[in-house]
Amino acid sequence: MAVLSLPTVNGDRLNASISRLAKVGKLPNGEICRLAFTPEDLQARYLVQQWMVEAGMTVHSDAAGNLIGRYAGTVDSAPALATGSHIDTVPSGGPYDGVLGVLAGIEVVRTLRENNLRLKHPIEVIVFTDEESSMIGCQAMAGTALLRSPERYQPKIGGSIQDCLEAIGGNWKGLASARRTREDMAAFVELHVEQGAVLERTKKAIGVVQGVVGMLRKTITITGQANHAGTTPMNMRQDALVAAAQIVLAVQQIALSMPSEPVATVGSLTVLPNAVNIIPGTVELTVDMRDLSQECLNEMLERLQQEITAIAAATDTTIELTPGLSVRPTLAAPQIQATIEAVCQDLGFSYCLLPSRAGHDSLEIGRITDMGMIFVPSQAGLSHSGEEYTSPEQCTQGATVLLHTLMRLDELYPC
Amino acid sequence: MAVLSLPTVNGDRLNASISRLAKVGKLPNGEICRLAFTPEDLQARYLVQQWMVEAGMTVHSDAAGNLIGRYAGTVDSAPALATGSHIDTVPSGGPYDGVLGVLAGIEVVRTLRENNLRLKHPIEVIVFTDEESSMIGCQAMAGTALLRSPERYQPKIGGSIQDCLEAIGGNWKGLASARRTREDMAAFVELHVEQGAVLERTKKAIGVVQGVVGMLRKTITITGQANHAGTTPMNMRQDALVAAAQIVLAVQQIALSMPSEPVATVGSLTVLPNAVNIIPGTVELTVDMRDLSQECLNEMLERLQQEITAIAAATDTTIELTPGLSVRPTLAAPQIQATIEAVCQDLGFSYCLLPSRAGHDSLEIGRITDMGMIFVPSQAGLSHSGEEYTSPEQCTQGATVLLHTLMRLDELYPC
Repeated sequence: MAVLSLPTVNGDRLNASISRLAKVGKLPNGEICRLAFTPEDLQARYLVQQWMVEAGMTVHSDAAGNLIGRYAGTVDSAPALATGSHIDTVPSGGPYDGVLGVLAGIEVVRTLRENNLRLKHPIEVIVFTDEESSMIGCQAMAGTALLRSPERYQPKIGGSIQDCLEAIGGNWKGLASARRTREDMAAFVELHVEQGAVLERTKKAIGVVQGVVGMLRKTITITGQANHAGTTPMNMRQDALVAAAQIVLAVQQIALSMPSEPVATVGSLTVLPNAVNIIPGTVELTVDMRDLSQECLNEMLERLQQEITAIAAATDTTIELTPGLSVRPTLAAPQIQATIEAVCQDLGFSYCLLPSRAGHDSLEIGRITDMGMIFVPSQAGLSHSGEEYTSPEQCTQGATVLLHTLMRLDELYPC
Repeated sequence: MAVLSLPTVNGDRLNASISRLAKVGKLPNGEICRLAFTPEDLQARYLVQQWMVEAGMTVHSDAAGNLIGRYAGTVDSAPALATGSHIDTVPSGGPYDGVLGVLAGIEVVRTLRENNLRLKHPIEVIVFTDEESSMIGCQAMAGTALLRSPERYQPKIGGSIQDCLEAIGGNWKGLASARRTREDMAAFVELHVEQGAVLERTKKAIGVVQGVVGMLRKTITITGQANHAGTTPMNMRQDALVAAAQIVLAVQQIALSMPSEPVATVGSLTVLPNAVNIIPGTVELTVDMRDLSQECLNEMLERLQQEITAIAAATDTTIELTPGLSVRPTLAAPQIQATIEAVCQDLGFSYCLLPSRAGHDSLEIGRITDMGMIFVPSQAGLSHSGEEYTSPEQCTQGATVLLHTLMRLDELYPC
């Protein structure tokens, strides 16, 4: 088979680099805290930059602090085939989220170089700035950053986004220069841990991502009448919590009834005055809805609004809906999905198609060029946790699929 | 008609005394804060004691600090016909809750005395200690106080119950001596504001109370699995809030389905971790159920337990039920209810029968002797509030019904 003659990544080398990076920001309890813009973030960037140079890449960083390693191709004018992810973590993170995508990208380049291979297109490995919070790196590159509203980017470590960017060699005023287009980046492929349990439960090695879901968030405030839980007969009540309970169940039912299998969650719910002997007068709750299709999100919202109108009337309460975060979905390019599928078939790796229901740098980059994502399993679906785990074999399989996908895209995309 | 020849209370005098007492503990915002055992409580007791003496009563206080005014009857050995209520308030109370019952009792005695009337039975007007919190006064008199567990009585103002009783002339060690029986108290009739909106909505002047409801409280803890609201498909969730919502609606449905019209409330509900993007892992909520019939309460609890078993199975959660406060209902004596009804009919006052769904001193005193309660309307059903209001006319009507009820019970009960 042709596959056998192809180069293979060095799994030991890849996993050694994952282990090495996991030491940066490691807490006594085993969790990793490597927030963007901190000394730990800089230490990790420094290490990754060295590995990029050692792998034969030229390295530069843009105005958003994105670190970009470039492995030249054979056709000078060809747009890049890009890969990468992020190396910042949440406050109690694990070793794989983001990191795998960056280090597998570097391992792909190492593999090409030691096999004396160059693609026609240059390969770029990108470390995006602050994926876990502001997403300023991928937004700047996609041209979706709010250039006139720096105050909308509140770095987790405090201070202004301007100062934070400065600390990692970026430059807020020049942020527009970080923008990329399809002309200079033909495609972007991101390898990432699933952060969910679908692959583990369906026993698949690889997830071929159909797209990154969009998100609609709303805050719902229900105003009834706080009253004595003893002296107020059932038929004289305006119980905000009874209305809220109906909304919680409506949100679940709406998600379950849609054929595209969206998710919808009431994650936060607060009751006032919240006393055992007082009928709840006010409840505030949040709704978070996610799906690959904006039309589906719109329809869910419309149905929720209808339900809320009926619930308000039935419970004699006033219900107000306040808009929150709204992010449009990004679909993976069909030819990249098909390429990843074909690679899995040829390598004999089990796989399934699935949406990414968490946000990623790909969500933004997919707005300017063709995008694809490769998932590997997360044990017990855990992420953003010190217990986050993907086995060395699974990491190596992901990097192998990334390598062969980029090699095939090199043939697919014109130079 | 015979009624016309009967003595009538002095409404102006009654309402003047209510207004005078409302000055004790009045806050700048108009609310009244007269917590038991505070200097304000003592100031109010001092004033009430003077009024009792001026009305021709002998006065003493028992080991629980209950203040007892006694207007002698014509038959030396006759047991007392007792009335009264409390003069302590919640931290932001109003002028009528409790106070009306005490001051109307004093007004009844004043009226009898100025008409040169004595009943065969002595009349007692009782100010019970700390109705709004520990209920130590009525419990001591009913013999239901936990004599071996003073730590179970935590006064709202801090300190020990022993020290608090001492401050108002009581004595914890002698608490058993406060106990009364049917032998020395033939009946107890309490006039009180409704603290609900039934009389106002049904446009009735007087409520003939059928009894004080019993109460069952439970804390319910639901344990699911906190998880990423994006990456966890709907069918892999163990959402504690979805389970909680089903319980909230089940509690409401169970109350609505019972013919005796009980009330049931989920007043407090707390979600963990309570974040917009995390499926709730734990929910703790309280259930408060009240009804005149203990059998009804037991059946409601049994049905709730059945529902919880089904909800736990359907939502893949663990649900634990922890017992809380449990108070048995006390029914009003049928002949006292009938007497109050007859008085209303003879006086031409509109009335209805209704349960008291709030706790009262009568709840405890009804365990040792015949008990009855008279309600007058609360504007908008408000109580435990600076906006608590019952009109002077309504207060006077209540006192009038109390006077005539006691006079008829004097004929009804043997000496």
